[in-house]
Formats: sequence, structure tokens, C-alpha cells
Amino acid sequence: MNDLKIPNSIAVIGMGLIGGSIAMELHAYKPSIEIIGVESNEIHIDKAQALGLVSRIEKLEEAINQSDLIIVCTPPDVTLELLPKVLDNASHQAVMDVCSVKKPLVQAVSGHPRRGRYLAAHPMAGTEYSGPGAAKIGLFNDKACIFCDTENTDEKVVALGKWFFRYLGMHLTEMEAADHDRHAAYVSHISHITSFTLANTVLEKEKSDQHIFTLASGGFDSTVRLAKSAASMWSPVFQLNKDNILDVLDNYAMHLKQFRDAIAGNNYEALAALIHKSNKINKVIK
Amino acid sequence: MNDLKIPNSIAVIGMGLIGGSIAMELHAYKPSIEIIGVESNEIHIDKAQALGLVSRIEKLEEAINQSDLIIVCTPPDVTLELLPKVLDNASHQAVMDVCSVKKPLVQAVSGHPRRGRYLAAHPMAGTEYSGPGAAKIGLFNDKACIFCDTENTDEKVVALGKWFFRYLGMHLTEMEAADHDRHAAYVSHISHITSFTLANTVLEKEKSDQHIFTLASGGFDSTVRLAKSAASMWSPVFQLNKDNILDVLDNYAMHLKQFRDAIAGNNYEALAALIHKSNKINKVIK
Repeated sequence: MNDLKIPNSIAVIGMGLIGGSIAMELHAYKPSIEIIGVESNEIHIDKAQALGLVSRIEKLEEAINQSDLIIVCTPPDVTLELLPKVLDNASHQAVMDVCSVKKPLVQAVSGHPRRGRYLAAHPMAGTEYSGPGAAKIGLFNDKACIFCDTENTDEKVVALGKWFFRYLGMHLTEMEAADHDRHAAYVSHISHITSFTLANTVLEKEKSDQHIFTLASGGFDSTVRLAKSAASMWSPVFQLNKDNILDVLDNYAMHLKQFRDAIAGNNYEALAALIHKSNKINKVIK
Repeated sequence: MNDLKIPNSIAVIGMGLIGGSIAMELHAYKPSIEIIGVESNEIHIDKAQALGLVSRIEKLEEAINQSDLIIVCTPPDVTLELLPKVLDNASHQAVMDVCSVKKPLVQAVSGHPRRGRYLAAHPMAGTEYSGPGAAKIGLFNDKACIFCDTENTDEKVVALGKWFFRYLGMHLTEMEAADHDRHAAYVSHISHITSFTLANTVLEKEKSDQHIFTLASGGFDSTVRLAKSAASMWSPVFQLNKDNILDVLDNYAMHLKQFRDAIAGNNYEALAALIHKSNKINKVIK
């Protein structure tokens, strides 16, 4: 797009890991862009200001009025409530979100007169930590960003989204929101549930923290890493992507039972075959 | 121990990830020690020699005869068979193994006239890769090594084991073999089963590898990493630690069901509580 206009002011709503990292990246490499932060949590405001992540903090409506691009970086349940209100106030601005669940969001604004100004985006980057103190440069680099249902988004807004997320170092993919949510359940959301479950299983059994700590070098640490993730983010994800997550959980439980049956039945050939099958993940994960 | 005698020759039986890494570390930092490798797989022999991991390759009996210390680094089922034979031939040498299952091994040699020369050791280090090509310097550094049932091992052999594994950079812990196997099931073995299961669930559902690859930046990659691990190692671990593993699997399935029930029943408070509980892993895992 030759007529792409780089925004003068970007409003970042929600100063968490994602919003904070976006602000940090913009601040470091595009200091000419004004970053207006919106955040209700006083501790997060203080932290974001101490880290110099934002030019200033404003109330939601002022931030929208004074920006060309609005990135909504709140947890999915908050975003679901906020998104129609942001669009109500966005007379000319582009609006994007970053949630890992997309179908409920595009449904929530499907009849909105300004639907075209909204780009449903999912930058697939994160860590197990949250809040502006966890923000970091390079978080998005070389990761995937999914745009959903772009046929309902104005071309100029899609072009701006491409510029923005490519600027963060991401490679872009497009898919239908419903497909996105199904894939995300399998390739991201379930990993969090298995980590939470592993942590709860071990914490209940190993009353002595010292034993876990001493023995955790055997691969446990990377497998359980995601169990540090925030309930405020993941409980809404599981709610909003409920059907897909129940589907993947039932499949996972079935595959887990295959392992249990092979071990309990001393069926070593079946056990080795299950492991060999899973080794094929080698081809797709570096 | 003031009279500790550093071995002139060490036999490393099994040129896999662990045996290869031990040989590599000795070769790099203690070149005066002769390393005699024992390996039946021709490809592994060639690789170990190409990497300069061993002074020479010998048949098992010659390697034992010509060494002061024998480290058995074969998979657990092979070690279980090999260990009594190694002790049969060890007229004066110290013998150690590195398996992640200990009780079947100490039971297998409990009546052996040379039981005292055997130290049951579990250096808790590894990666998801196997074979001598995966060997690396620093693999053991700052990881835990567990010695089991040392009351049945000669003091001089325990002292040699302490020197050896500390030399590799490990911190040492002692426990009963039965306790070790129970802890290992919870803190190491289950992580492999959950990773294998996650890989099988996703591979079956996501027929297009490209989708997994594109979307895997959302935490999936670290959670599924262990699914690359070798069946030749892990199938015997699951067999030999069967009772403990079935116990942890049943507990894990119960905790998984708690998540499923909370999601299916729209019980968001219970869901958040389960996540908050699991976040306590934060205290013990860095």
C-alpha cells in the first residue's frame, strides 16, 4: 500500500506483558510515535511509567480520541466487553486486539457499523510471566501473527496491521476465526492445561518443595514452565474457547489412556509404538 | 577421603548421550585418564571415534579388565541385564550406573558377592536427543546426582563416585532407591508421558504439519520438547518403574478431570482456583 500512513499516536490499552512489550519496542525503535497507555491497575501504571513504556497515561476515551491506532491488549474477557465500546468511539482510527481466542470477538462486533476498522489479530508470543515488569524487547521477533476474517476489515486497516506486526518482527498468516480457535486449542491452549495439571499433580504429592527443586532437572522444568501463567488470562481463554478445548482435552485423555493401558498391560511393543509415533513431532518442532 | 585414588582408566559402557557426554568431559579436562568405550552399535562407534570421545573401543570383558572405574551408561533394561555380569568380572574395580530407575537395579545385585563395589547413581541430566552425536560439554553442570542405598556400597567406591560426579559439576543427594523411583516418577518420568501424549494428540488432529509449525510459538514447543525422546530409553523406564508411574498417571488423570469439569460446568471460580494452585510451582522452579 503506497498510501500507508504511519500513525503519530498509538493507544495501548492494557499494560501487561503484551501491551508493555509492544510499548517497549515502539519506544526503543520508533521514538517519534507517541504511545498513550490505558491501564486501570495503579501498580501497573507506576511500573509502566517507571520503565518509560508510555508517553502518558490517559482514560480510555481520551486515549482513543488522541490516537490513530488502538491496540487492545487486555485479557480476552475484558477485550470482549471493551471492543464494541472502543469501536463506538473510534471515528476514524484503526482498532486491533491481540487475544488468543478470536471467534467470540469477531462475533461481538459483527454487526457494528465500524466493523471495518477492526482487525482481529493474534500475535503468538508470550512468556509465563505477566504485567508490565515482564515486558521485553524481541518478544515478538520471528513469531507468528494470525489475522482472522480480514475480508470484513478495511484494506487500509489490514495494511496498517501488516506494517505494525511485521515491524515487531512477526511473520503473518491469515485464517478464519473459527479455524484459528480450533488450532489454538490444539497447539497452544492445551499446553497450558497440561502444565497446570502437571504442577498440581506434583505439588500435591511432593509435600517437600525441596525434592521437586532438587530433582527438577530431569525435563520437568520446561514441561511445567507454563504453569506459572496467570489465571486472569487463561481462565477466560478456556471459557471463551470452551468447545474446542473440551474436544482437545477428550482427545488428550484418550491418548493418555493408551499410554496407561500399554504400561499396565506390560504391552511393551505398543508402548514403543506410541513413543515412536510421538517422535514425529521432531519433523515440525525445531 | 585422603586416600582417594583417581582412576587411570575409565570404561564407559554405552556411547549414548550420557556416556558420550561423560567421555567428552573427561577427554577435554582430564586427558591423562584413558577412556575405554564399549558399544555394540557400529554407527555409534564410528561417531564416538570421529568425535574423539574414547581412547579406544574394547569388548566388554577387556574394557572391564583394563579399567579402575566402570560407568554403565546403557538404557535401563540393558543395564539390568549387564550389571550383574559387570560385577562378576570386576575383581577390584568400582562400578556405577546412571539409570533413572534404581530399585530394580539394586535388587538385581543385592545378593552379589561384589555388591559393595557398585554405586547406584542417577545423574539427573539429559536432553531430548540421543546417541554420541548429542553428547555435549556442560550437560551435567549444576544438575542433581542422586546416590541410592549407599549403605551397601564400599566407602571407597562412594568416595570415588562423589569425586567423579562432582568433577562433572553435579550437586549430590542421597536417598533410598524406592524413594528415588517414586520421586523420579513424579518429577521426571511423568513429564515425558505428558509430552508424548501431547505430541500424539496434536499430530493426529493437525494433519497439516505446517499449522503446527506456524502456531507452535505459543508455548507448545517447550511443553512438547521431551516428545522427541527415544523409545529405547523410555519404554524400559516406564516398564521398570511401572507401579509408581501408574500411580502418578492416575493422579494426573484425576487432576486433568478437575480442569475438564470446571470448564465443562462453566465453573470459573473453580477454574481460577486450580490455576492459582498450580502457580505455586513458581516457588520451586526458577
